[in-house]
Amino acid sequence: MNTCYWIWYFGDFELYHAMKQNFSRIERGYGWPAFWKSEGFRNRVAFRREYYLERETAFCVYSGAVGYVLAGDKKYPFGEKIVCGPGKIKISVHAGCIETFPSIYVKGEVIYSDGTWQVEDYGNPPVKAGYSRYFTDENQNPSCWDYSEDVYLPVSVEACGGGLLYEFETELTAVLEIKDKKGYRPLRVCCGESREEALDREHCYYSWIPDARTGRCPRCAVRYAFIPDCQEKELEVKAIHQYVDIPVKAQFCSSDGLVNQIWSVAEHTFKLCSGIFFIDGIKRDKWIWGGDAYQSFFVNQYLMSDRDINRRTLLALRGNDPMTTHINTILDYTLYWILSIKIHYEAYGDLPFIEQIYPKMQSLMAFCEGQRDEHGFLTGRQGDWIFIDWADLDKEGALCAVQMLYAECFRTMAVLCRRLGKDSAISDGYQEKYELLKKNINEFYWDSSKGAYIDSFASGKKHVTRHANIFAVLFDIADKGQKERIAENVLFNDGIARITTPYFKFYEMDALCKMGYLEEVLVRIREYWGGMLEQGAVTFWEEYDPDVPEEEQYDMYGDKFGKSLCHAWSASPIYLLARYFVGLEITDPVRGEYVVHPHLEYFDTLDCILPVGDKTVHIIWDGKELKII
Amino acid sequence: MNTCYWIWYFGDFELYHAMKQNFSRIERGYGWPAFWKSEGFRNRVAFRREYYLERETAFCVYSGAVGYVLAGDKKYPFGEKIVCGPGKIKISVHAGCIETFPSIYVKGEVIYSDGTWQVEDYGNPPVKAGYSRYFTDENQNPSCWDYSEDVYLPVSVEACGGGLLYEFETELTAVLEIKDKKGYRPLRVCCGESREEALDREHCYYSWIPDARTGRCPRCAVRYAFIPDCQEKELEVKAIHQYVDIPVKAQFCSSDGLVNQIWSVAEHTFKLCSGIFFIDGIKRDKWIWGGDAYQSFFVNQYLMSDRDINRRTLLALRGNDPMTTHINTILDYTLYWILSIKIHYEAYGDLPFIEQIYPKMQSLMAFCEGQRDEHGFLTGRQGDWIFIDWADLDKEGALCAVQMLYAECFRTMAVLCRRLGKDSAISDGYQEKYELLKKNINEFYWDSSKGAYIDSFASGKKHVTRHANIFAVLFDIADKGQKERIAENVLFNDGIARITTPYFKFYEMDALCKMGYLEEVLVRIREYWGGMLEQGAVTFWEEYDPDVPEEEQYDMYGDKFGKSLCHAWSASPIYLLARYFVGLEITDPVRGEYVVHPHLEYFDTLDCILPVGDKTVHIIWDGKELKII
Repeated sequence: MNTCYWIWYFGDFELYHAMKQNFSRIERGYGWPAFWKSEGFRNRVAFRREYYLERETAFCVYSGAVGYVLAGDKKYPFGEKIVCGPGKIKISVHAGCIETFPSIYVKGEVIYSDGTWQVEDYGNPPVKAGYSRYFTDENQNPSCWDYSEDVYLPVSVEACGGGLLYEFETELTAVLEIKDKKGYRPLRVCCGESREEALDREHCYYSWIPDARTGRCPRCAVRYAFIPDCQEKELEVKAIHQYVDIPVKAQFCSSDGLVNQIWSVAEHTFKLCSGIFFIDGIKRDKWIWGGDAYQSFFVNQYLMSDRDINRRTLLALRGNDPMTTHINTILDYTLYWILSIKIHYEAYGDLPFIEQIYPKMQSLMAFCEGQRDEHGFLTGRQGDWIFIDWADLDKEGALCAVQMLYAECFRTMAVLCRRLGKDSAISDGYQEKYELLKKNINEFYWDSSKGAYIDSFASGKKHVTRHANIFAVLFDIADKGQKERIAENVLFNDGIARITTPYFKFYEMDALCKMGYLEEVLVRIREYWGGMLEQGAVTFWEEYDPDVPEEEQYDMYGDKFGKSLCHAWSASPIYLLARYFVGLEITDPVRGEYVVHPHLEYFDTLDCILPVGDKTVHIIWDGKELKII
Repeated sequence: MNTCYWIWYFGDFELYHAMKQNFSRIERGYGWPAFWKSEGFRNRVAFRREYYLERETAFCVYSGAVGYVLAGDKKYPFGEKIVCGPGKIKISVHAGCIETFPSIYVKGEVIYSDGTWQVEDYGNPPVKAGYSRYFTDENQNPSCWDYSEDVYLPVSVEACGGGLLYEFETELTAVLEIKDKKGYRPLRVCCGESREEALDREHCYYSWIPDARTGRCPRCAVRYAFIPDCQEKELEVKAIHQYVDIPVKAQFCSSDGLVNQIWSVAEHTFKLCSGIFFIDGIKRDKWIWGGDAYQSFFVNQYLMSDRDINRRTLLALRGNDPMTTHINTILDYTLYWILSIKIHYEAYGDLPFIEQIYPKMQSLMAFCEGQRDEHGFLTGRQGDWIFIDWADLDKEGALCAVQMLYAECFRTMAVLCRRLGKDSAISDGYQEKYELLKKNINEFYWDSSKGAYIDSFASGKKHVTRHANIFAVLFDIADKGQKERIAENVLFNDGIARITTPYFKFYEMDALCKMGYLEEVLVRIREYWGGMLEQGAVTFWEEYDPDVPEEEQYDMYGDKFGKSLCHAWSASPIYLLARYFVGLEITDPVRGEYVVHPHLEYFDTLDCILPVGDKTVHIIWDGKELKII
């Protein structure tokens, strides 16, 4: 039996669920929908496919939309058995829906729905239908994600502050279920990522009154649950952890217990932040951010190697054409979208998907093309947010770091156009733009007296930060000699302001690894991530500063509990360890080809399984012999 | 107390309800959503307003969306009393919603929501908020239209065909409610616009099984209801007629009983087809068609003079920018949209609204600009539907009738740009394009030997139909001499194929009236509309051919009951009688200025009230003296 899939207009599923995700932020009683252009799905589409039937066959179409099936020249309602053939027959399914995206499920032995169907929205040429491996049953509804569930009971209950504090073994994304053995009372439950947050009735992010009928609270991040004004232990409390089941393919086991523990906590952190999409963290925003997602693509490649979450995240971020605003309103996040596709390609060689989104890659590049200054530097439009990092960058005029990302976009486009077999004039055009931009970056931003790239030339300040210099290493804007000078004058120069965010720390460590400073990186991993573990972290935090007193560790953005304690970008040790220490370089993910450059000098023993596309490789080092299976 | 309105992103309300309307077609058990690009509303918007408060004041924001209120720098949830002032304060309300358009209701003495608020969608510059006079209470939900209701009991019940046939006094758009005195049974109800349709269980458009709990059926067009397999008269049947309450301002009473009856039935027909939007008819499509709506704009002006339904219909038809397909997929319907605004302006002088939709007028014209051939004629893009009429037109190459509509669009744009006070270069540009196109039409399409405009010049066939020649009169493409030749060679030439659709018959009669052939028009009104009355019509039909045998009168589009028996475009006698016979020409609707050119020779007496913008004029002719009050 073939697998029938629910199908929809390519991208609609992701746009719909992305809105649900981006509108799910709740803060102390009010909703906070993401503050950027939120793109709608289509409301009226037609699905089409032609068949050459050898014999008579039957099928049935299911849909929650308004519409009908046209088989040949006869119309049928949804849910009715349709018999047709033998011979050539055109099937079209017309569907309209307002509240969600129209989707259909065609069930039959010969005639059934999958990604081979065409779908049109009456505004553009037909495209291939979208589908998901999670929606293959006619009783499902693609607007409702069926989460996998695990039930957790509290590991401790403690009477304190006039109520009861429940602790779970780790942080979860869970529906709390509270049952009062005496019958329903309108209790309040205060949730916290930390004990302190749960106990702070006023400042905790989430506090709920359980539903009277079910005793359940909305799904949210929770490790501690505090129920005030509740003396007796007459409650039954459980957490129903809801998650998207994406199997982890990697295993990391070394002779270094701390590093093993860092990997393990990073893995748990990353799994929690990998739902329908890559989100930043599970407590606060829960938004799909282009910059954060870009870093998740690196980790995914070496941990879960799941191409589907990449695809969903890419479609969610990019929205519809025409492109009228930057992704998440941030110019650099627009550029990371192209770079994310590069990582997606390197990880999975997923050309069919890249072919499908190629028009959106082109239109993104065209959107940026209109925002260049007289030197060809990308400056954005008035009011555009140029982020790069929370750091003291000289942002007057065109920013060097932005040009480096932009150059890498051109290089990526050139490479992918060649891979997709596009007209060579197209890839050559991108290649030329790449080379010209790279040349101009070196001409305008490289300061040979400082031996470093400056943030910006417009102000005349010649301000040097680590950011552009890190990108110069990562994207090969700098040549070998320049890289050596950058290492000396910037990366290992204490006079240059430190990177303070874990977000940019990833790029810095990636650059250090790329340049071979592995020992330095290992020290930092042990210090920084190890430091969080010492503080009792069960998931890695959005930010960690060992110098901050313990009672202020949860403070961020001027908010007492503003810091997210389970944040995707803090899972980056997985990538660094797998890519540079175990040294796995994937050379052909489709064929499962790879090269291993292991740095065994840091471990007495090592036993790792890492994914290579759909396959895995097992790397074993017993201190004497290296086995790769 | 000021009126607080529910507000939303300008146009969203109309796009949402238009989808509901266009997806409401049901045919013998299956849904048939309109087959054109259906445009979504926005999902994430921010409403903003700044106040200078003399003293402290309180307000509260209501919304079904996810979001919060930002007053100054403090955030509040919806539904909470907010106190602020005195002094300057910025209020912004953030709202996200997936299933419907986000809307808010701000209630307060000083701070309250109305059309003065700004709203933005994060993709375009802020615009003025949309609102409706029908939504002014915080307990309403702008996604649900609260219809006015009247209950109708059947005027007769008849046992026939093994069941019971209920007749209502006229055609309705009603929810049938069936109560079985013995308790609920799953009865089937077959509805019909005609007795024949209701009795035909197989071919009637609507047949329902009433809801078990309420005994109610979905809202649909119904004059007859047949309940098969039901012998006893143990049922209670009523029809709950649901309508949008738009008051009729006109009254027509002449000495000619037949004409009075035609007016009255046309009025009833038109009211039924004037709901949230102007729709074509109430049984079959129930879709918002640009060509049909254009004709409704003429009737509305002289019957209800309701500017709001025009506004709603214009916004619903046009959709969002960028424009990528023709309105209803039909090139000429795109052009009627601009011409509808012309009629809207002439009827209401509604410059504030026209200013709001001006960007969409501009982008529509730009969309068409890209579809002109080497002579500047509008030909559309490959696959575009060029309709004009169901008639044997020579459609090879650029079609004359299309160019005439297009020329009128340029003239309209020139006029409205001047009225809106746009830069004179803009209006001059449109004026020049108008003049050039008009010149070229006369050069390429006027055949002086035939004394008529030909359909097309590309084929060399020099085919003459009435259509372009009617437009030449209506839009003054023809000069006085040409018009006279058109009358002789086309309009009164039996050798030229007759107009067969009531749709185009309206343009023909309008042209005849414009040229002074009133007697001819009156004869045709009495024959054609009088003919339908003789057939027992209680509403006017989509089409009527006296030569068709009675048993085939309901047949259309190859469907036994395909003909709509209550069709908006058949209400045109109202416009013709008011505009040309009573002779009311509105010259300044804002000030209530008009000119009356009455043709009293056709009536012994006349007592008419007609709207002039928001005012009315009373015209009384007692056979001797004419009074205008």
